[in-house]
Amino acid sequence: MISVWAPHRERVRLRIGAEDHPMRRGDGGWWHADAPRPGTDYAFLLDGDPRPLPDPRSRWQPNGVHGPSRWYDHAAYAWGDHAWTGRNLPGAVLYELHVGTFTPGGTLDAAVERLDHLVDLGVDFVELMPVNAFDGTDGWGYDGVLWYAVHEPYGGPDALKRFVDACHRRGIGVLLDVVYNHLGPSGAYLGEFGPYFRGSTIWGPSLNLDGPDSDEVRRYVLDNALGWLREFHLDGLRLDAVHALHDSRATHLLEELAAEVDALSAHLRRPLSLVAESDLNDPRLVTAREAGGYGLTAQWNDDLHHCLHATVTGERQGYYADFGSLDALAATLRGVFLHAGTWSSFRGRTHGRPVDTARIPGHRFVAFLQNHDQVGNRATGDRLSASVSPGLLGCAAAILLCSPYTPMIFMGEEWAAGTPWQFFASFPDSSLADAVRSGRRAEFAAHGWGEAEVPDPMDPATVARSRLCWDELAEPAHRAVFDLYRALIRLRRAEPDLTDPRVDRLVVDVATEPGWLVLRRGGLRLACNLGRETVDVPVDLPPGEVLLASAQARPGERAVTLPAESFVLLRVNREMFHSCE
Amino acid sequence: MISVWAPHRERVRLRIGAEDHPMRRGDGGWWHADAPRPGTDYAFLLDGDPRPLPDPRSRWQPNGVHGPSRWYDHAAYAWGDHAWTGRNLPGAVLYELHVGTFTPGGTLDAAVERLDHLVDLGVDFVELMPVNAFDGTDGWGYDGVLWYAVHEPYGGPDALKRFVDACHRRGIGVLLDVVYNHLGPSGAYLGEFGPYFRGSTIWGPSLNLDGPDSDEVRRYVLDNALGWLREFHLDGLRLDAVHALHDSRATHLLEELAAEVDALSAHLRRPLSLVAESDLNDPRLVTAREAGGYGLTAQWNDDLHHCLHATVTGERQGYYADFGSLDALAATLRGVFLHAGTWSSFRGRTHGRPVDTARIPGHRFVAFLQNHDQVGNRATGDRLSASVSPGLLGCAAAILLCSPYTPMIFMGEEWAAGTPWQFFASFPDSSLADAVRSGRRAEFAAHGWGEAEVPDPMDPATVARSRLCWDELAEPAHRAVFDLYRALIRLRRAEPDLTDPRVDRLVVDVATEPGWLVLRRGGLRLACNLGRETVDVPVDLPPGEVLLASAQARPGERAVTLPAESFVLLRVNREMFHSCE
Repeated sequence: MISVWAPHRERVRLRIGAEDHPMRRGDGGWWHADAPRPGTDYAFLLDGDPRPLPDPRSRWQPNGVHGPSRWYDHAAYAWGDHAWTGRNLPGAVLYELHVGTFTPGGTLDAAVERLDHLVDLGVDFVELMPVNAFDGTDGWGYDGVLWYAVHEPYGGPDALKRFVDACHRRGIGVLLDVVYNHLGPSGAYLGEFGPYFRGSTIWGPSLNLDGPDSDEVRRYVLDNALGWLREFHLDGLRLDAVHALHDSRATHLLEELAAEVDALSAHLRRPLSLVAESDLNDPRLVTAREAGGYGLTAQWNDDLHHCLHATVTGERQGYYADFGSLDALAATLRGVFLHAGTWSSFRGRTHGRPVDTARIPGHRFVAFLQNHDQVGNRATGDRLSASVSPGLLGCAAAILLCSPYTPMIFMGEEWAAGTPWQFFASFPDSSLADAVRSGRRAEFAAHGWGEAEVPDPMDPATVARSRLCWDELAEPAHRAVFDLYRALIRLRRAEPDLTDPRVDRLVVDVATEPGWLVLRRGGLRLACNLGRETVDVPVDLPPGEVLLASAQARPGERAVTLPAESFVLLRVNREMFHSCE
Repeated sequence: MISVWAPHRERVRLRIGAEDHPMRRGDGGWWHADAPRPGTDYAFLLDGDPRPLPDPRSRWQPNGVHGPSRWYDHAAYAWGDHAWTGRNLPGAVLYELHVGTFTPGGTLDAAVERLDHLVDLGVDFVELMPVNAFDGTDGWGYDGVLWYAVHEPYGGPDALKRFVDACHRRGIGVLLDVVYNHLGPSGAYLGEFGPYFRGSTIWGPSLNLDGPDSDEVRRYVLDNALGWLREFHLDGLRLDAVHALHDSRATHLLEELAAEVDALSAHLRRPLSLVAESDLNDPRLVTAREAGGYGLTAQWNDDLHHCLHATVTGERQGYYADFGSLDALAATLRGVFLHAGTWSSFRGRTHGRPVDTARIPGHRFVAFLQNHDQVGNRATGDRLSASVSPGLLGCAAAILLCSPYTPMIFMGEEWAAGTPWQFFASFPDSSLADAVRSGRRAEFAAHGWGEAEVPDPMDPATVARSRLCWDELAEPAHRAVFDLYRALIRLRRAEPDLTDPRVDRLVVDVATEPGWLVLRRGGLRLACNLGRETVDVPVDLPPGEVLLASAQARPGERAVTLPAESFVLLRVNREMFHSCE
């Protein structure tokens, strides 16, 4: 059965090859016809409109988002992950990956070839940037218009299954970034079928989540989410910019989604995770439903990024203004959000709400030093390593990987990739391409960037520059960074204190002058010298075994002497009486 | 390092072979000495007491609970479950297993030989009855006195590891029953070491959880729990009779345990479950900590057992009085607890508290038709199948396995084992043995049982009678029951509606006369005729595909005709418009 929702249409036809077949009107605004054989191309014709439109729920768009859909048979793929019982988010390290620029090939199959690198690094989840179908070949993926389809240049739906399968066979879970807050500017035919849209965001039309007919629009979102998890064996979803979802209903879409995903998790008998990107600093998102929350698994924490970024770069422009002190970093490490019902200068208002750190575990917040946005939305897409010393970067990586939060690494960060990661798109429509190009340049011109300095997002060279260069890994300087990340991740796995999610047990000591920070995690201490001189960093208990040091650290009686821009992770000597088990 | 807590002793010595070594006093009441080589027998001598006592944290008691401990090296076992990422409780089916009577051999290694039967049946977790060390060879395990040791007649610590390893390689998780509410009546030397005890239960001394020195006593419990999960790779614990834990602290032991287990789960990067046996009908146990609960994974639900039992047996004695109507069964299926702030006649008071079924998922409650207590604590340990028709048993099994709760099966139930499961123990001390024997008989004499009718718990023949007889599985009548359980479990896996944890979506229709019940689970209906005549059971929507029937069911237009004591699970015909995904 092939079905499509078009509640206010008088006639819907199914086009297969040169033939049009009338569809029969069912209940609730749905139209039905017999399904074609798998692999058959098809499209819908609405009333008298001559344009054949792709299926809003199409799984396969071999000829792009404007072309016909191809009927896809989920049952044809032979999965190899039968022994997979899922992967839990608590304790995990995430790795954000953009398929198009992860490898020279830019496909999911090419990415499979590099999975052993991730096993070696020690990450638990890959978080795939959006793979839904968008217009053009290259792009970040947030301009998706056919949310159910897998972008054909990445390999289409079967390639996604092969990728997930290959990850599972290596013990790696896969999260997928999905964008429910808007549709891309090209190919969004959804509005032709029914009242899918209601208002718009700066990026494109947004969904009708609470107007008339919105029950079915919400199902479009919910079924999409469930389909990835069930049919593609994904282990969770990253929900893009949930602050841009407009939903005034008593049960917010996110809570409804969390409840449905929990039910699916019970059906599939494996854990499923929902991770929200949110600008709201609202702990409600990750609070259990019985406590009045939405019950999501985790949410991104930009505040901690901003603190870390401002600390190592010294940047204070724009929203970094509020975050540029070690006291702010310490407060955010302890309290999750810096803005927690407090003044946010760039918002011009108070923002956020405190997290109950005695009861909400730290792993419900994703922490990162870099991510696709924080790198790619800089004028030239320069990574931190382009301007920050290896020593300071090591300190920041150590803070990240010794924190009680869920750490995420952006692809290439683990070897301080020399390649930038820039903003790119490839809209075939030239006027849209021009608009995107000039919009980008205007945005940065306002901050003093010359036109020639900002890469042209439509230039294929911009994508090419953004591709990881794997040969770098053989170079000693890059290899050293990789070894440091790998060592930190191994220690995070080996030492229970480092994954302890009880944020209220974390103690942070800082001194702005000369610039050091100590994280106390149970019986471990991470001491960082962020300044340019050797200093004696005080430690509350006698230093013991050194687990990892980025330079020659000399533990003393109640302090450790650290060279400029270096860290040490060490055990302190406590009483023995709890160590016999 | 070998350490022991004995805070009020003046002298503690370590006996190895014929030699006594002084131990040095450390902080917090702990005593320390160098550890012997693995495999060395040792004991402690306290002050002038000439008795060498076993280690309270002994992992290995090769010569029983009164003998010396043997130093055990966890690192020596080579695990084979590296690919195991854990198993989540939601959606799972549990199988309660008593090692001593599961097989003729009565050991963990012998149990491994039968694991493929469990794979065939389709269960997700084995719930092992207690394996901690207790006095005597045979017993249920609830009289443990060395909580850290694995009962030697079961094979000792290495055998438990082999068992867990073998389960994991088959995709089966393992929960272990642990008893923290009391110690057994023989071999409880704990009180010699320190103020471990405070009061007692009817079964033996209970722990000091909130008196002076109780910090360390709580650690004894917490470290025990964490040790099973970490060192033995267990996937969770079943906490015996938590209503008998006496803890007046602001943070209840169970909440503290749940928080520590969550931290360990993040360290081990696999889900860990805590399942409480509780008589309290208090949803706080399984409510999230941020909602003021303890945050346990699940709790047993006796009310549902009592309803099912009373329904199929007609028994109304004792506590079954309140539960013996189809209305009570329907109310319990819908509300989790029958006693939810309502009158409990056998308690002579109101009892329990309602569950917020709109927010607390059903999988947090374990449901069962039989378990070790409900069978074994009957005078003759007779299983339901000894007195209830196969037809009614099938109906009850279907209700259990189509419910939104976590179903648990008691070993042998899946083929209606002809063997009873009786109360047995084997205390070597003859006066204790006499006391247990006469106590048991007196208990049942009060209910009209003659002395000769109640099996002697100390008679080895009682254990022998309680062993499963695996040859039964080849007999057609038993095989038919097994096939029914297996089919129900397969349907539970295949049909998302059956594991849907949203209890508030469950609708139950009943008619006391002539005695039928319908469970509405999404698009499925389970119709049971519990009466002795063929009846037309009304169904709210037109019956469609029959998924399973225990007898010749004839679906009509808005009803299904069911023979006496039979059930049918069928799909109903709803609108199509949600089925296209």
